[in-house]
Amino acid sequence: MSAVFEANGRRYAPPDRPIVVICIDGCGDEYLSVSISRGRMPHMERMARNGYRGLVRGVVPSFTNVNNASIVTGVPPAINGVSGNFFLNPETGEEVMMNSPEYRRCGTLLTAAADAGRKVAFITAKEKLRTVLGDGIVERGGIVFSSEKVDEARYETHGIDDAESIIGRPRPEIYSADASVYVLEAGAALLAQQKADFLYLSLTDYMQHKFAPEEAESLEFHAAMDEQIGRFLDTDCIMAATADHGMNAKNRDDGTPNVIYVESLLTAKFGEGCRVICPVTDPYVVHHGSLGALVMVHLDKPAMAGEVANFLLEQDGVTEVLTRDHAAAKLELPADRIGDLVVLSGRSVVLGKTPEYHNLKVLHQGLRSHGGRYEEMVPLVISHPLKSEYIRKAQGDPRNFDVFDFACNGTC
Amino acid sequence: MSAVFEANGRRYAPPDRPIVVICIDGCGDEYLSVSISRGRMPHMERMARNGYRGLVRGVVPSFTNVNNASIVTGVPPAINGVSGNFFLNPETGEEVMMNSPEYRRCGTLLTAAADAGRKVAFITAKEKLRTVLGDGIVERGGIVFSSEKVDEARYETHGIDDAESIIGRPRPEIYSADASVYVLEAGAALLAQQKADFLYLSLTDYMQHKFAPEEAESLEFHAAMDEQIGRFLDTDCIMAATADHGMNAKNRDDGTPNVIYVESLLTAKFGEGCRVICPVTDPYVVHHGSLGALVMVHLDKPAMAGEVANFLLEQDGVTEVLTRDHAAAKLELPADRIGDLVVLSGRSVVLGKTPEYHNLKVLHQGLRSHGGRYEEMVPLVISHPLKSEYIRKAQGDPRNFDVFDFACNGTC
Repeated sequence: MSAVFEANGRRYAPPDRPIVVICIDGCGDEYLSVSISRGRMPHMERMARNGYRGLVRGVVPSFTNVNNASIVTGVPPAINGVSGNFFLNPETGEEVMMNSPEYRRCGTLLTAAADAGRKVAFITAKEKLRTVLGDGIVERGGIVFSSEKVDEARYETHGIDDAESIIGRPRPEIYSADASVYVLEAGAALLAQQKADFLYLSLTDYMQHKFAPEEAESLEFHAAMDEQIGRFLDTDCIMAATADHGMNAKNRDDGTPNVIYVESLLTAKFGEGCRVICPVTDPYVVHHGSLGALVMVHLDKPAMAGEVANFLLEQDGVTEVLTRDHAAAKLELPADRIGDLVVLSGRSVVLGKTPEYHNLKVLHQGLRSHGGRYEEMVPLVISHPLKSEYIRKAQGDPRNFDVFDFACNGTC
Repeated sequence: MSAVFEANGRRYAPPDRPIVVICIDGCGDEYLSVSISRGRMPHMERMARNGYRGLVRGVVPSFTNVNNASIVTGVPPAINGVSGNFFLNPETGEEVMMNSPEYRRCGTLLTAAADAGRKVAFITAKEKLRTVLGDGIVERGGIVFSSEKVDEARYETHGIDDAESIIGRPRPEIYSADASVYVLEAGAALLAQQKADFLYLSLTDYMQHKFAPEEAESLEFHAAMDEQIGRFLDTDCIMAATADHGMNAKNRDDGTPNVIYVESLLTAKFGEGCRVICPVTDPYVVHHGSLGALVMVHLDKPAMAGEVANFLLEQDGVTEVLTRDHAAAKLELPADRIGDLVVLSGRSVVLGKTPEYHNLKVLHQGLRSHGGRYEEMVPLVISHPLKSEYIRKAQGDPRNFDVFDFACNGTC
């Protein structure tokens, strides 16, 4: 299985042992720090001690699809085309979910690995990620399914029959800690049964949206994940863990969500002609009510961009306003799939469209969300010591979408 | 000693036990994470386990004087006036060091605590911090000295005679790990001998400028600090630890510093009339060669600000350019003590003036520095559990300059 392959301009030469990459959805580094300090992640601590732990820069917008797309392609959205969960399609003028591979502008390293003979498994918690990023793997002999719909997995469409019995447990509820733990269990089962040797396991941030690092439920969740991580560390695999984005509380002192309704503000100030897109929008509204720390503003009159940008920057809680060109250059985004303006908010603030657009009733314990700068930096933990050139790389400006490079090429 | 006091609009009601706040200069959170995972900071780990560990937002410019001034005043630079180590004095047109209390626009909570009857000790590694922030304490019966010049401490001027014999060791070299460890030893000695019960201990980032978290020298340094931290935890004090800023490597692939010389660029493009100030500049040039991730640009023709900003934003490695007004509002800076533009660079990039201005020969092992967004978030660790209202506060947008509030008012 000594398979060397290339994908999107990078060469991957993984060693002859299983490669396991996990993306802990919404895992701000403080979740690991607190869980480790409280003795709830001994295996993660062992991984950091024996290998490497540091911070890597994710992609802003710090959303799930954007970062998972970057991780499986190894390139930023400017190349892979995935700029949000949700965007304004310039070809149709419609607001649509990026929920199929046609929105992606390049192939994945997972299919390249499969072409090179690796037994690839891509297991997600959220079905949406399977549909956006999982194409081409089953055709190449690999396995792709989500814990959300593991019961629908069939050999013809998912590369596996009877997944639940192979894993040994029935489908978990998607709004649960178990939806993530199950993905790790599934990966460990496929690895143990030699059904896969090149795994990408992408979890869900349901728990991180609900609980801060020090809350009992979060500590329990991290302990449950850690138990599974221990199973991988007991094999001869190389394991790397990163995150798609961090997570911060976004509430006012009274506990209600700290929202700036950007389209309402702009309509009141400038009249009709300013359309706000919330790219965090996805089917899992219970997580965030479609409220994140970054929105796109589309202007009927793009020449107003400067004036609108200045007005938005004057709002408390707005931290950055980038024009389309600057956002494309600085955040490495596809210029045709972002707004005339890209607006970011502070650590405890989210941006919305209008009060009517968002259903805050789905948020039971206040809002925790992501999307901006304060959820940009995420952990990278690798089970084995790094080669000197990768130590240097880690001390530069490494990205979360370098994680397969580190796992395949970076360890001693 | 049940002393309630106010300073700069905040009320502090510390309990009847010693308060010890330490500012670990340059302590990006990953220094703690790596040191703890490798078993080198058992006392810090115990502190996090029994109390609280999380992230707080420092002040940008993420420099030492700026953040220490904010910590001892409890307010941001917009109020305390300290916008850098070095600035262009608009009254004189001269570039000057902010090296005396006259540059500060409000009093410190340290003198307020002393007025309320607390036995205050402010011990720094760097002499510069003593001179900028230590005024008024000795007159109120407190103690102020630096490890850099501990041998010059006299009762009349520093509130203490024979400091070296009280601490039990002679003055350390300023360019050393020991310069920081000595500050902690001094604090522990004053506490043990009941010479102080309200301590602010501010270290130096010499080691962080030289070594990444996983390097042996850094691990040794953190273990030595941790031994002292254990001495405090063995008393009945409340201890809080934070940092002034984080630290990142700033080098190209070939190991040379990754610098954008902003004044050179602007002069080539726009001719004379653009003056760049590097506010990281201080007497400790071996640390950073006056290269940081934020510079001020002063324009002879301020009306050119928009054009110059756009040009600078086009440069690879420049991440943000704020006008004076936006910087004053967003970063809470004094508008009269910053440039017409405030320019920030990326995680692995620093900004300089001209190649002639900076002496890179002082940097022996590549450059590690700070000053921008990627050094903004820092740890907050507190020895005791937080009250519920401070848990909520910690989950909002807490600042490093809230550290005395957390220590005095926040624990159960």
